[in-house]
Amino acid sequence: MTQPIRIERTTNPKPRPKASELGFGKYFTDHMFILDYDAGLGWHDARIVPYQPITLDPAAKVFHYGQTIFEGLKAYRTEEGKIVLFRPDMNMKRLNRSNDRLSIPAVDEALGLEALRQLVQVDQDWIPDAPETSLYVRPFVISTEAALGVSPSLQYKFIIIMSPVGSYYSEGIKPVSIYVESDYVRAVAGGVGHVKTAGNYAAGLKAQEGATAQGCAQVLWLDGVHRKYVEEVGSMNVFFRLGDKIVTPALTGSLLPGITRDSVIHLLRHWGLEVEERLVTIDELVEAQKDGSLKEIFGTGTAAVISPVGSLYWKGEKLTIGNGSTGEVSARVYETMTGIQTGRLEDPFGWRVSVE
Amino acid sequence: MTQPIRIERTTNPKPRPKASELGFGKYFTDHMFILDYDAGLGWHDARIVPYQPITLDPAAKVFHYGQTIFEGLKAYRTEEGKIVLFRPDMNMKRLNRSNDRLSIPAVDEALGLEALRQLVQVDQDWIPDAPETSLYVRPFVISTEAALGVSPSLQYKFIIIMSPVGSYYSEGIKPVSIYVESDYVRAVAGGVGHVKTAGNYAAGLKAQEGATAQGCAQVLWLDGVHRKYVEEVGSMNVFFRLGDKIVTPALTGSLLPGITRDSVIHLLRHWGLEVEERLVTIDELVEAQKDGSLKEIFGTGTAAVISPVGSLYWKGEKLTIGNGSTGEVSARVYETMTGIQTGRLEDPFGWRVSVE
Repeated sequence: MTQPIRIERTTNPKPRPKASELGFGKYFTDHMFILDYDAGLGWHDARIVPYQPITLDPAAKVFHYGQTIFEGLKAYRTEEGKIVLFRPDMNMKRLNRSNDRLSIPAVDEALGLEALRQLVQVDQDWIPDAPETSLYVRPFVISTEAALGVSPSLQYKFIIIMSPVGSYYSEGIKPVSIYVESDYVRAVAGGVGHVKTAGNYAAGLKAQEGATAQGCAQVLWLDGVHRKYVEEVGSMNVFFRLGDKIVTPALTGSLLPGITRDSVIHLLRHWGLEVEERLVTIDELVEAQKDGSLKEIFGTGTAAVISPVGSLYWKGEKLTIGNGSTGEVSARVYETMTGIQTGRLEDPFGWRVSVE
Repeated sequence: MTQPIRIERTTNPKPRPKASELGFGKYFTDHMFILDYDAGLGWHDARIVPYQPITLDPAAKVFHYGQTIFEGLKAYRTEEGKIVLFRPDMNMKRLNRSNDRLSIPAVDEALGLEALRQLVQVDQDWIPDAPETSLYVRPFVISTEAALGVSPSLQYKFIIIMSPVGSYYSEGIKPVSIYVESDYVRAVAGGVGHVKTAGNYAAGLKAQEGATAQGCAQVLWLDGVHRKYVEEVGSMNVFFRLGDKIVTPALTGSLLPGITRDSVIHLLRHWGLEVEERLVTIDELVEAQKDGSLKEIFGTGTAAVISPVGSLYWKGEKLTIGNGSTGEVSARVYETMTGIQTGRLEDPFGWRVSVE
């Protein structure tokens, strides 16, 4: 049986930020969920408490050896006023795959889902209701044992915090420029690129700086072995419309199996489109751009849902994708995904989970 | 001019652990150094304060995106009672190379060295004096801004903590068994394997579990591209005595440029031995073991200084190195390195830095 969750409500609620000020991950709600792990005791003391600082020994392993993982999902308030989460079971499953890779003990998935539900309910007034806003939910695990030996921690905390987030596209969905990265590598098979662990993101910052310097919004990552297979865009999965087909890089072990990626593949196939998960080289994309068969590129992820790509910078050349504006499939996928997520459209796949 | 360091001494010193109980990184001294960074202000407020917990927002970037780096070095008390550090300038230089790769602002190296000196002086009674014990010093930087956007933090803390550590070889230097890892990969060129960032260590834990399950002490890492070039052993650099030469893997971009590695290369060449830094395949090692030309293997690192390897497990086979005991060069390097570090031997290279 799943352990009970103790709830301690704040006596000092914070002021709510305006919808126009939200941005991404800048404001946090009144409460957080905490679950402790101690070797011998297991995961214990599930509680929802007022949002508060964490106090750790400076020798806590998370600071030194990076044994930590996270997840990200969104809660929405539907037009009828219901609160829904999008496929939270997928996040809890991936959380435990990440835990396994990082030698962190598994969390009870039923408890994790119950914690998500109860925390969202407690802070439901924090779910913004302006168009395309949502409540971003961030479960994460940190290793807290104060010891400098390089070995799995004997203590952890599983925490969930939440942040009301604004529309990613305040002026409507808009294509971005992408810098094809040929020096830095995000991940390699045998490593940790297929799970959500902190180090993957820190390692990508330097390449992002280079992309920004070139006037690009994101990096297109190539594989670390052959330096030619396309893997991800920024911290999103990536899709290509090549002629009549939609192609997305296969999960070769260095890519994150995105939940938006999985949902978009289902949706496209549901529409009768052909989707191929396979290796895609940058050379294939460049040729297809030149012969006109590369019609669209878009990224997929929890934060932006869909991010259309207007151009690629590769070897000093700017390659315009399609006519440089949001493609037909990108726009349809964006409208449908956000429609299903927010309850504006029917959900033929059973992806929405009601929090009540 | 380097900024002054404020010192606040503890009024509540901790009991000292017995030399026999020290282990590695389990006990911490009475004081720590802290330096804050805020965008716009730069690094400021250098201080030595009583060892104390760190309080961070649960959204602090270090927990989510792993933007953190560290160093490790040792302080010794010589037989004449002087306090010495081993090549601390090398640690400060590498710290800033790590900072650069992780998009963390550079720390003033002179201030870092002064902080090391003053902190070691303040806690000098913590330097253990039993044979082969030392004071392990751990400088590290964590990103502390409370924000979930994937971008470099606008706030950091540079902290130094110290731990009295026991003899790595309580029963004398002893060779270990090594498991040649063929599934997991530590790092790849273009990534972060050449700098000391937390994520590298978390990613290696799973392979270490596998090595332990096979009765081995450590993993021998192969490169992530060809899966055949030897890179590191556990979290140490590695050396091979092949016939008359000493060979160590070249710094191809995925290996840590160890300070012990650098020192050992200098020492061996000083002795007139031929040292090659080049690519080394596992197949070359297996062949050399079979024809008898692979005489010795040893790891090098700050914690163990020298770790001789007695056997390799590869493809289900146990390959004994030399006669399975500590080799002649390994033993001589260990005696000389620890002799120079602790002041027992002359220091022809000027590596010891007096703290007074």
